[in-house]
Amino acid sequence: MINTTQKHQATLEQAIRALHNRTYFSHYPENPLPDVYGPDADAQGRAAYDARRGQPYAELQQGEPEAWVGQEESPYEQQPLHITYPYYAPETLVCNAQQAFGPWRKLKPADRAAILIEALEGMKARFFEIAHATMHTTGQAFLMSFQASGPHAADRALEAVAAGYEEQTRLPEQAQWDKPTGKYTISLRKTWRAVPKGVALVIGCATFPTWNTVPGMFASLVTGNPVIVKPHPKAVLPIALVVAEVQKVLVAHGLPATICQLGVDADDRLITRELAENPAVKLIDYTGGTEFGNYIESLQSQGKVVFTEKTGVNSVILDSCGDLDKVVQNLAFSVSLYSGQMCTAPQNFFIPEAGVQVGDTLVPYEEVVQKLASAVQGLAANPKAAPHVLGAIQNPATQERVVQMSQRGHRNALAHGQVDNPQFQNARTCSPSLYELDATQKEHFSQELFGPILLAIKTKDTHESIRLAAELARKHGAISCAAYTTNPELKEEIMDQMSLAGTPVSFNLTGGIYVNQSAAFSDFHVTGGNPAGNASFTNPEFVLKRFTWVGFREPATS
Amino acid sequence: MINTTQKHQATLEQAIRALHNRTYFSHYPENPLPDVYGPDADAQGRAAYDARRGQPYAELQQGEPEAWVGQEESPYEQQPLHITYPYYAPETLVCNAQQAFGPWRKLKPADRAAILIEALEGMKARFFEIAHATMHTTGQAFLMSFQASGPHAADRALEAVAAGYEEQTRLPEQAQWDKPTGKYTISLRKTWRAVPKGVALVIGCATFPTWNTVPGMFASLVTGNPVIVKPHPKAVLPIALVVAEVQKVLVAHGLPATICQLGVDADDRLITRELAENPAVKLIDYTGGTEFGNYIESLQSQGKVVFTEKTGVNSVILDSCGDLDKVVQNLAFSVSLYSGQMCTAPQNFFIPEAGVQVGDTLVPYEEVVQKLASAVQGLAANPKAAPHVLGAIQNPATQERVVQMSQRGHRNALAHGQVDNPQFQNARTCSPSLYELDATQKEHFSQELFGPILLAIKTKDTHESIRLAAELARKHGAISCAAYTTNPELKEEIMDQMSLAGTPVSFNLTGGIYVNQSAAFSDFHVTGGNPAGNASFTNPEFVLKRFTWVGFREPATS
Repeated sequence: MINTTQKHQATLEQAIRALHNRTYFSHYPENPLPDVYGPDADAQGRAAYDARRGQPYAELQQGEPEAWVGQEESPYEQQPLHITYPYYAPETLVCNAQQAFGPWRKLKPADRAAILIEALEGMKARFFEIAHATMHTTGQAFLMSFQASGPHAADRALEAVAAGYEEQTRLPEQAQWDKPTGKYTISLRKTWRAVPKGVALVIGCATFPTWNTVPGMFASLVTGNPVIVKPHPKAVLPIALVVAEVQKVLVAHGLPATICQLGVDADDRLITRELAENPAVKLIDYTGGTEFGNYIESLQSQGKVVFTEKTGVNSVILDSCGDLDKVVQNLAFSVSLYSGQMCTAPQNFFIPEAGVQVGDTLVPYEEVVQKLASAVQGLAANPKAAPHVLGAIQNPATQERVVQMSQRGHRNALAHGQVDNPQFQNARTCSPSLYELDATQKEHFSQELFGPILLAIKTKDTHESIRLAAELARKHGAISCAAYTTNPELKEEIMDQMSLAGTPVSFNLTGGIYVNQSAAFSDFHVTGGNPAGNASFTNPEFVLKRFTWVGFREPATS
Repeated sequence: MINTTQKHQATLEQAIRALHNRTYFSHYPENPLPDVYGPDADAQGRAAYDARRGQPYAELQQGEPEAWVGQEESPYEQQPLHITYPYYAPETLVCNAQQAFGPWRKLKPADRAAILIEALEGMKARFFEIAHATMHTTGQAFLMSFQASGPHAADRALEAVAAGYEEQTRLPEQAQWDKPTGKYTISLRKTWRAVPKGVALVIGCATFPTWNTVPGMFASLVTGNPVIVKPHPKAVLPIALVVAEVQKVLVAHGLPATICQLGVDADDRLITRELAENPAVKLIDYTGGTEFGNYIESLQSQGKVVFTEKTGVNSVILDSCGDLDKVVQNLAFSVSLYSGQMCTAPQNFFIPEAGVQVGDTLVPYEEVVQKLASAVQGLAANPKAAPHVLGAIQNPATQERVVQMSQRGHRNALAHGQVDNPQFQNARTCSPSLYELDATQKEHFSQELFGPILLAIKTKDTHESIRLAAELARKHGAISCAAYTTNPELKEEIMDQMSLAGTPVSFNLTGGIYVNQSAAFSDFHVTGGNPAGNASFTNPEFVLKRFTWVGFREPATS
């Protein structure tokens, strides 16, 4: 333990500093370059993934399963992967976790942090395998699969480890308390323990199976809680590989592998509710739809600590800019990235009826919509770029939503279509469609339309755009907001109103940085301040609520 | 503003250091000495209190009321105080608070902290008036009324201000984020705001009207939220005086008094639910019974942030000690202090059937019970001490509970009685009673019996005592635990089991320090880790959840 702890101490301290500086920091290189990851890394990762297809996933060390189950299928091939995973009944998983709690909670925070960083090193060695597993479960293009499920996820996990370690060591372990009473001094020796809450459950989603799972998973682990990872049944493999790496390091340090378990759904029933409602489960992290998220949040009244990332309605406020072509290029990329299947993807574009001020020119509303449609269309039709940006559609329901939207009679500025993918002829794809609405048609733009659906909403002026964007965020949640304005007063109005709506704002982005991107150690992902979710990667609250400060005192002389 | 901020900066910094050192620190002297508070302070405070009786309380600056209402009565006189307070409908209070939100949230955290410390200085100048108001609403004896409602409460308020200020300034307000991409650098200028949640409600209790109210009140205020203080209808005056001091300082700084309002119940209906359920109310602090507390916690599913202190079952574990007489003297004081009406008062005394090891001697169970009963009896019968320790009974229901308990047929080791109080012949008093139960009679010792009721519970051994104390704390909550053991293994077992039950433990206390006492800046009051409540005075979570970090970014060149 001592060696591992020393080995990773510098990384841990660097990560803590990064959390406070909030300048650029990344511990895991985001580009899949041969000179970083080795010349054969990609080929080996792909081969490792290929070898798993049609096989039981036998890498976990959590005991004899009750059954082998699996339901994954590739959005690129629209074929089952035929990989099976060991199934354990919920009560078995909880019972295993309870037994593993003792040895895990008794370690020092520094030792737990080091073990987890060691596991992230193991994950790093498998980034390419995880990338191919992510592609063929989520439908993300390769580069996003690599970055989001690999280095970006590992950075978010390290961030959670650093924050958790810092909070657990922020107060003294002991102090002498000498109270002068006039006649004499009362002296007490006081000690404090950071006591983990108990069994933790992390419920994953189908689109970002590692990125959205590892923050809660590593936050609960570093604070001493045993974790059950319950992945979405359609996206198991990417996070199974991470769990396997954690288990390897635990076992190597003489600890039970069951400190971190994978708990998959049975083929004939979902086990999430059973796990979540088990009285021994004290902590729940959830990423997914709002309806089930609200149910998970209702479990707070049973004394459970709950972290959620649900859904939101993300807005773009277009007021004024220097170069409208650069703006629409940037936004076209944002809406096309993974075909709008990101929780940070923009949906509602608020445009003043008088148009957008571009330098000295007022570009009419219709022209702004047309430029946006053209930019989106241009990207989707670009055979060199489109497959690598748009990827494939994870869930057939997303494609159905797009079709249904086209039948609602809204004015259509851009129709959806296929995205040609020479490598995967059978890929499930869908290019973005754009509809025009009026500011009065609130019922049509007040919900998340998950997937590649864009709405241009004509407003009286930018004040109305701001009012609507803020109101939607307050009432229905929002995870991102892009705003374009060269007017300082309007900028402050946007910051003020969106801050009250708990929504971060990216101003005037053009070029190679996009509103959807959220950088570990700098950007808080989800603020916790609106209905899109109560968790934030990674503010202090995200780790603090996973343990309890308990104090002890006794006469100093005893 | 600048002057006030500079004036209190040193105090603020000292308080933050104290939070981290957790050694002894107090900013407000706890002894009501003439050389500290002035030779006439007591007489003036008493006169000020007397002058309020039978009068409308006209010191608040929150606008024309709808009515004047009041229901307080003195437990020492069993007579109404006939003081009336301005009544405002819940929607008026919320509307006022919403209007006051803007100017308050736009101040810097340092300015808000300074204004609040200035208000605490005003409170300090009225500690004696507050003490007499506390006596004649809660039934506390004078010294406790002074200390708990005055300096100890002010220290807890300062602690919340310090913690809130520190958390709001812990992250940078801005940073330059430079990401190297290989070809070029992406530079973003990032800023962050700590955004208050919105209107806050603080619901007080009848026994500690300022001590339990000011932490949530000052925590919400320092983080920029306008506060509505809803006191218990039987204990309004002590906190009304504090609210008046806050309003004075706000107005003196050109701010609306309605940033901090007093919202009393109407004479014919309670307004707490209406206030709590108002959608604009985002934060709720609550001290009181478990049933209503559970209802308040259920409002979390409406997205409200809730802090509760409910009730618990506090245990004493008697295993071994050096001097049993000193132990029972200490415990007798703890159970007699304010006649057991403290949330930290011990109730269940777990004693091994074989007895308690005292040095080389094993003192039989029966003798331990007898010694405890004698010590309690001795204190209650001591005319010089009893009135000043036991005070009076706040609520007639507490006295009824004592009588009902006497009719249940449990073996009675000490009967309840009156406590003579020469100063207040008509005081509602009740001395502690002690009943003996068996470890198997769990249904009889698994609930809080609020007031001066003690249970001696005979266990197989100390392991069973620990198991039961921890189980009760886990299932029903606990706020304190006293343990007496000279055995290091048992001590560790107690620490381990009670820490998992989220309960602080005081070991081997004798002399002038008691398990009920909880010191600001050092002891966390309530851990938040068991059903006794989810709030803890003052851990970082207690202030963090009152605001949201929201980030903004833009190209560094824009």
